Amino acid sequence: MIIGVLGPKGTYSEKAAEQWIEKNGREGEDILEYCADIQDVFSLLEDKKCEIGVVPLENSIEGSVGITLDRLLENDVNIIGETIVTIEHCLLSRGKKEEIKVILSHPQGLGQCRQFLKNHFPAAELRTTGSTSHAAKLATEFEEMAAIASPETAEMYNLNIVMPNIQDRKHNHTRFVIITRSNIPESVQKYIKKDKQGSSYKTSIIVYLDRDRPGALYAILGEFAKTNINLTRIESRPSKKVLGDYVFYIDFEGNINDTIIKDAISNIESNVGMLKILGSYPEFDSYCESN
Amino acid sequence: MIIGVLGPKGTYSEKAAEQWIEKNGREGEDILEYCADIQDVFSLLEDKKCEIGVVPLENSIEGSVGITLDRLLENDVNIIGETIVTIEHCLLSRGKKEEIKVILSHPQGLGQCRQFLKNHFPAAELRTTGSTSHAAKLATEFEEMAAIASPETAEMYNLNIVMPNIQDRKHNHTRFVIITRSNIPESVQKYIKKDKQGSSYKTSIIVYLDRDRPGALYAILGEFAKTNINLTRIESRPSKKVLGDYVFYIDFEGNINDTIIKDAISNIESNVGMLKILGSYPEFDSYCESN
Repeated sequence: MIIGVLGPKGTYSEKAAEQWIEKNGREGEDILEYCADIQDVFSLLEDKKCEIGVVPLENSIEGSVGITLDRLLENDVNIIGETIVTIEHCLLSRGKKEEIKVILSHPQGLGQCRQFLKNHFPAAELRTTGSTSHAAKLATEFEEMAAIASPETAEMYNLNIVMPNIQDRKHNHTRFVIITRSNIPESVQKYIKKDKQGSSYKTSIIVYLDRDRPGALYAILGEFAKTNINLTRIESRPSKKVLGDYVFYIDFEGNINDTIIKDAISNIESNVGMLKILGSYPEFDSYCESN
Repeated sequence: MIIGVLGPKGTYSEKAAEQWIEKNGREGEDILEYCADIQDVFSLLEDKKCEIGVVPLENSIEGSVGITLDRLLENDVNIIGETIVTIEHCLLSRGKKEEIKVILSHPQGLGQCRQFLKNHFPAAELRTTGSTSHAAKLATEFEEMAAIASPETAEMYNLNIVMPNIQDRKHNHTRFVIITRSNIPESVQKYIKKDKQGSSYKTSIIVYLDRDRPGALYAILGEFAKTNINLTRIESRPSKKVLGDYVFYIDFEGNINDTIIKDAISNIESNVGMLKILGSYPEFDSYCESN
């Protein structure tokens, strides 16, 4: 299969894809297609130039990745998996610390090291790139440039680790989702087991509430509470229609094939302006051990 | 009074401050202090070098301003007002469209024009600045540079409007909050009317739920639902402890001095790990007309 990830080589998104490939025992069977940015991963999938995409969804320091949330709403996608990657940002450069005047990274990388940048490089020019490894690649050009990226990219692009572990908090994790088209390609279907038990599954939905119905969010959460469905995440994002109007991204434990989940969703559907089911997928549960 | 805003001259934050000053009939009475970034506005306030700060909180296209949410949680602040500014981003440069190779703006500005940038300048280098007007100021240096900023800054920094109205959606609004220290300075107190009616007031709180208590968010929303308190916003943000752990920012109608609100908050307090009251302030309600 072809898997779309953020490129060039060395991104955390590539690492996420490799984790997922390994977990599914597919080493050597898939080809990674490197994209310039997150939007391009979604486009590649939509244009049927890949079967699977791997995109970052949320980070433990900087929060949601807005563009991913927007594309999950607007594009024709289905989430079939998740994986969590430990992030260890380093400052990479050909030059020395004193020489660095320009620092490049993905906006999330810059955000996760905001305090570090303010303390150590208050006058540096900050440039955003489509990915952390793209930043590393560009930083090879001049000694006054540095990238915020993984230690692996240092070796890959022949850069020095000027400062290791520079994120603002010791623990830094990003949750990636594995996506495909809603009309799941056959090659992908072979690798999705529909677990009827559902206990280790998670489901993601997006709901848009009617603005003139106060208490609608409460009613939705009530559907989960009354049957003890465990919510793992709730996130709001502007509807982009008018300020103060939101869509909600809700993740919860359970599989859409479970009767209890089916019933809850059907009850919710009648209470909201729009409901989109993003998919049910095996929960990534080993990350807690790494903390 | 001294009011801390994002600088240099020409930011939307300055516009927000002016709107607030005018609304309170204080023209000519306050001095604006221009800060390099949002963090500096909070620091200026904490260091008692200003009495009031004006910071962006959320945008109708790009959503929450993460650094503002983080500072509201961690710093000693009280929200005393809000104002909504209509955003009209333009592409400003000394050069012509064909010459532009570098585009600068605040990360929110770049995010609000993401699609535009991808369509018109797929190869441009993107640089982040502390504010949109700082981007405009820097863009005066070279003809190959352009800034995403307001049309007013074009005149201010002697730049051409290369392309007007470039945000990804026609309507673009940012909500700013007016902040002071929780021990409200006397000079500020004079300008805050404590409306006992509460009908046109809004209150902002932050809550941290105990992770091991599923349904805690539902219980909180229930406190609002049972007394028909209208929630205007709920937003999650990483607790930064571990992935999947969040604090919630909740805005609702009503004044902390109203008995009904006081009771709700006291009930919520006993159900959560942490509750921070950010303040009660007059609701900005005229923005709906401008849509």
